[in-house]
Amino acid sequence: MNQQTFELLILGSSSASPTVDRYPSAQLLNIAERYFLIDCGEGTQIQIRKYKAKLQAIDHILISHLHGDHFFGLPGLLSTMSLLGRKQKLTIYCPEDLKLIIDTINKASDTVFNFEIVWQFTNNSSLNLLFEDTKVQVYSFPLKHRIYCTGFLFKEKSLPRNIDKFKLEKLNISVADILKLKKGMDVINEDGKLIKNNDATTSPPIPRSFAYCSDTIYYKKIASYIKEVSLVYHESTFLEDKKDRAKKTFHSTAKQAAEIATLANAQKLLLGHFSARYGNLKCFIEEAKSIFENCELALEGKVFKVI
Amino acid sequence: MNQQTFELLILGSSSASPTVDRYPSAQLLNIAERYFLIDCGEGTQIQIRKYKAKLQAIDHILISHLHGDHFFGLPGLLSTMSLLGRKQKLTIYCPEDLKLIIDTINKASDTVFNFEIVWQFTNNSSLNLLFEDTKVQVYSFPLKHRIYCTGFLFKEKSLPRNIDKFKLEKLNISVADILKLKKGMDVINEDGKLIKNNDATTSPPIPRSFAYCSDTIYYKKIASYIKEVSLVYHESTFLEDKKDRAKKTFHSTAKQAAEIATLANAQKLLLGHFSARYGNLKCFIEEAKSIFENCELALEGKVFKVI
Repeated sequence: MNQQTFELLILGSSSASPTVDRYPSAQLLNIAERYFLIDCGEGTQIQIRKYKAKLQAIDHILISHLHGDHFFGLPGLLSTMSLLGRKQKLTIYCPEDLKLIIDTINKASDTVFNFEIVWQFTNNSSLNLLFEDTKVQVYSFPLKHRIYCTGFLFKEKSLPRNIDKFKLEKLNISVADILKLKKGMDVINEDGKLIKNNDATTSPPIPRSFAYCSDTIYYKKIASYIKEVSLVYHESTFLEDKKDRAKKTFHSTAKQAAEIATLANAQKLLLGHFSARYGNLKCFIEEAKSIFENCELALEGKVFKVI
Repeated sequence: MNQQTFELLILGSSSASPTVDRYPSAQLLNIAERYFLIDCGEGTQIQIRKYKAKLQAIDHILISHLHGDHFFGLPGLLSTMSLLGRKQKLTIYCPEDLKLIIDTINKASDTVFNFEIVWQFTNNSSLNLLFEDTKVQVYSFPLKHRIYCTGFLFKEKSLPRNIDKFKLEKLNISVADILKLKKGMDVINEDGKLIKNNDATTSPPIPRSFAYCSDTIYYKKIASYIKEVSLVYHESTFLEDKKDRAKKTFHSTAKQAAEIATLANAQKLLLGHFSARYGNLKCFIEEAKSIFENCELALEGKVFKVI
């Protein structure tokens, strides 16, 4: 059966400063043609062009926290969206001070965007619903970093049960009863015959989910927010040999990322936000795999289908 | 004779938005190992790494105006300088509101740089001395753009006259007289003999200069500020076919840039700040050369020696 699109494009994997090959944090998530840009480090608009993603299709931008490597690309991206003639509104989910920063820049440069920005500020509550439509729900949840920071959880909504078209013709039931069947109920057809739901329908795909966890110290509570998640991205700025430095700077190691994925019973783990001190990133995978087998590096240009 | 270094590295040639190949405005000028970064569009720190320039050797940053394509790379650059352990002070020459923007960002991200920033605000006066040491003088001068904007003029100082070491031994003069000779004066030696300056010294190299003019509408007065300049960079966002658009947006065409170079009696012209609508830039050179022969495109990675 065809599932709706649910895939993640990595735009940046670096922590702190960009290198020639690695850009700061940014990921583009497509769920059923809703495009969510998650964090927006310097150069994100260049990466979006490089990987031929649809700039103007992005209607939601989520910023985890206000360290520069997570938002210094935003002023340029918004400016380009406006210059290219964007008219449709854009919602930005972020810490409150980001609006002040953008307003200060726009005032200094005498800029008024051609489109409306809807600002929706995140908060510290456990699971905070940010956005919902017919297909998807998006939540923020608290991470533990040097400054206020949230993760983001994206969940597909449950689809109605499937009814086989050929079977349907023989069932002799009303439209109202079709809707009941889709909801999992049994019905009685026009001939007075009981139609058991299981005989007429099949289960829809299990709803999938993606969680974004950057930046954070090792923080077990994250697992409780993202239980049974299909795909989790968890920062791993360091390896275990720099465990003390990770703790001091409120970051995590690859092993700690794997522990959170295990605790959450996630299906798959992505690692990223690598410190520029590491040239060869193979060790990150080796360290994480000792605890959690199904993991990959979230490197620039990679596309991960959520399954 | 060996002249001191005087060369310009182009880091960005694009106007408004970056493309995959072209970055927004940024140029790095090296005069006698003093490094001046002129404008700092998004991704400038990435370009500095790519072209293996010395990030921490930059002690002066000059920002012409507060349109994003001329400063959106600055917050990230400053942040990286600090993260890499910079201690020495940095002077930023810019419009006043830039300090407010950086302060607002640093407050929101709880950031304090490890080094001191000396803010020196430009103003609208004709030729405004920004910096001077034993080797160089730097001035700002007014351009004419949609918002407040200045150009920058860099001038080598005149060197003392050269004295031939072998001749010197025979002259029988005091140290004080050597200094007089270097200043161009005649002297009387220890034997009471008149030493004519021209017989003892040779002329030093003619001081060289570089002018940066971006962004601006065609504005003849610029030529009066940069008379006899060795190398001039003048924006050419458009070609003549978009002359009306250039005027409307307070930008220039390649022909107009060539006219300013001609009026200033410049030795060489560089063109840049190209609109993203132009894929092939050859036409810019053709248009400018019809008026001013010695010109080149200021493309990413190119190094121009000022002669």
